[in-house]
Amino acid sequence: MPALADLYEPIAADLQRVCRTFEDELFSDLPVVNDLCDQIRRFRGKLLRPALLLLSGRACGRTTDEHITLAAVVEMVHMATLVHDDVLDEADMRRRSPTINRLRGNEAAVLLGDYLISHAFHLCSSLDSTHAARAVAAITNIVCEGELQQVHHRGRHDLSVEQYLEIIHRKTAALTGLSCMLGATFAGADRVTVRALERFGLDAGMAFQIIDDALDIDGSEEQMGKTLGRDLAEGKLTLPVIHSLQHGDREHRARLQACLAAEEPDRAVLRRLLEETGSLAAARASAAAYVRSATDALGILPPGAARDALARLAGMIVDRRS
Amino acid sequence: MPALADLYEPIAADLQRVCRTFEDELFSDLPVVNDLCDQIRRFRGKLLRPALLLLSGRACGRTTDEHITLAAVVEMVHMATLVHDDVLDEADMRRRSPTINRLRGNEAAVLLGDYLISHAFHLCSSLDSTHAARAVAAITNIVCEGELQQVHHRGRHDLSVEQYLEIIHRKTAALTGLSCMLGATFAGADRVTVRALERFGLDAGMAFQIIDDALDIDGSEEQMGKTLGRDLAEGKLTLPVIHSLQHGDREHRARLQACLAAEEPDRAVLRRLLEETGSLAAARASAAAYVRSATDALGILPPGAARDALARLAGMIVDRRS
Repeated sequence: MPALADLYEPIAADLQRVCRTFEDELFSDLPVVNDLCDQIRRFRGKLLRPALLLLSGRACGRTTDEHITLAAVVEMVHMATLVHDDVLDEADMRRRSPTINRLRGNEAAVLLGDYLISHAFHLCSSLDSTHAARAVAAITNIVCEGELQQVHHRGRHDLSVEQYLEIIHRKTAALTGLSCMLGATFAGADRVTVRALERFGLDAGMAFQIIDDALDIDGSEEQMGKTLGRDLAEGKLTLPVIHSLQHGDREHRARLQACLAAEEPDRAVLRRLLEETGSLAAARASAAAYVRSATDALGILPPGAARDALARLAGMIVDRRS
Repeated sequence: MPALADLYEPIAADLQRVCRTFEDELFSDLPVVNDLCDQIRRFRGKLLRPALLLLSGRACGRTTDEHITLAAVVEMVHMATLVHDDVLDEADMRRRSPTINRLRGNEAAVLLGDYLISHAFHLCSSLDSTHAARAVAAITNIVCEGELQQVHHRGRHDLSVEQYLEIIHRKTAALTGLSCMLGATFAGADRVTVRALERFGLDAGMAFQIIDDALDIDGSEEQMGKTLGRDLAEGKLTLPVIHSLQHGDREHRARLQACLAAEEPDRAVLRRLLEETGSLAAARASAAAYVRSATDALGILPPGAARDALARLAGMIVDRRS
């Protein structure tokens, strides 16, 4: 499996500028605020969304100053959702570090998420036109709706595959789709190419979330660097579980529901039940299908390093273990 | 004391359009989201920020479609801060209705606040220029900083008057200042007039928050329609308490600190202690001074119904009991 650094090679210098923009935007004249933002830095992960935005720009011909700004914006939106998610999930660990809510309490975590989203919009509205700001805000509207849907369906064992896919489309794929769409748009790509890149980002995002949810069940906490099994403890049904509930016999379903009903469901027991119905494999196959669809969408682009990097990035999503 | 409806008379039709814009922007194709937004409607209060924005526009000559949009934006930002504040304060009641966190849990309340702020930016970026969006986001940055400062200082009995004023400047006055500034700017006022209106909004906001904090101590829950005494229970020092800690003798200070240290401080005991040092009256005098400064700033405007309404609105802030 290629290292991320290899894939990011065509945009390495751009990504450094994105990180500087991110830091500059978040700097405050209040020590208490900077102190909290320091915690955020420790969560810096794969920079997947900035990378998608920059590679999409490159694949369509170029990256500009607007790409740098917007790449920082999408990462800031993503960080805001992570910080608020950790509050909602009562998570303790994120990227090998204690979460903000664990370290500083829920109040600081709620406010830090607000601070991040506010700065994302502030940075976004530094561009000349309102086009990007409007697009970003339209997507954050959708992300919030997805999260609200997820909370609404929590604890319901009758969640359908369609409902699950709609939720992850909103809460995850919408933002990766936006990243690729903005990258193509600000490179001056034509409408058809912009739509193809958006399709790539949407499908890659769907695959990413399906795998993320599967790793919550069969991943290694050490490799993932975060608390796992939270979906189950919070009553969130994900694809492998929905598949297993639909494909097991009555007795299997009863055992699975009993396992899910526990306050802290036993991951080992759950894994065995899901293996009986081949449900983790089925979820990974579903993610692989999204990756194929994403890769197909790239066919419209001329061959090149950036297009290759996008295709390999999509491939990595399914194979990842962390 | 004049009724709000009288003061709002010059902008009554505009305010109705603002409410429609607010509703239209928040409408979702998801029933679960609309259902939550219905709760928000029950919190609709004084519409102080939209009124300040519209009256400032009128006082500078006119209101336009942009005023309607921006008035809905500042109210949406305000509602978002209320919803998140209620999570932070663990409040049960707001404007005679149970809070969102009480009704639907903290998760839904955090997400609903996010939904409101996201829609505020979405609506804001529907305008032609990024000027307003940039200004709104700059202020939401400051509001978040103020809230973070407040959380940081919680439980500290050595908070100074200056620190308290800095916090309320950020968390309350910045948004009322913005409302008046935007109202004047989009009416085409010159730079000096815009600054004068911003000054009015800032000073009126300071007075409003000082009185709000005093009412948390000596207001009637029935008249206010919300849980009172939360500042004290949460360890937030406000102006009357800071004044009393500074002006009482050592024995008085010890009694006051013992009262504050209780898990649920006794409001009646606290009121008696504050009366011994004349501290509630001192806080109200401070608010009255801000109102005078606000009213002075209006001197630059030509006489008229909108200017009068702004002056009377500022006067009402100090006299209000709810």
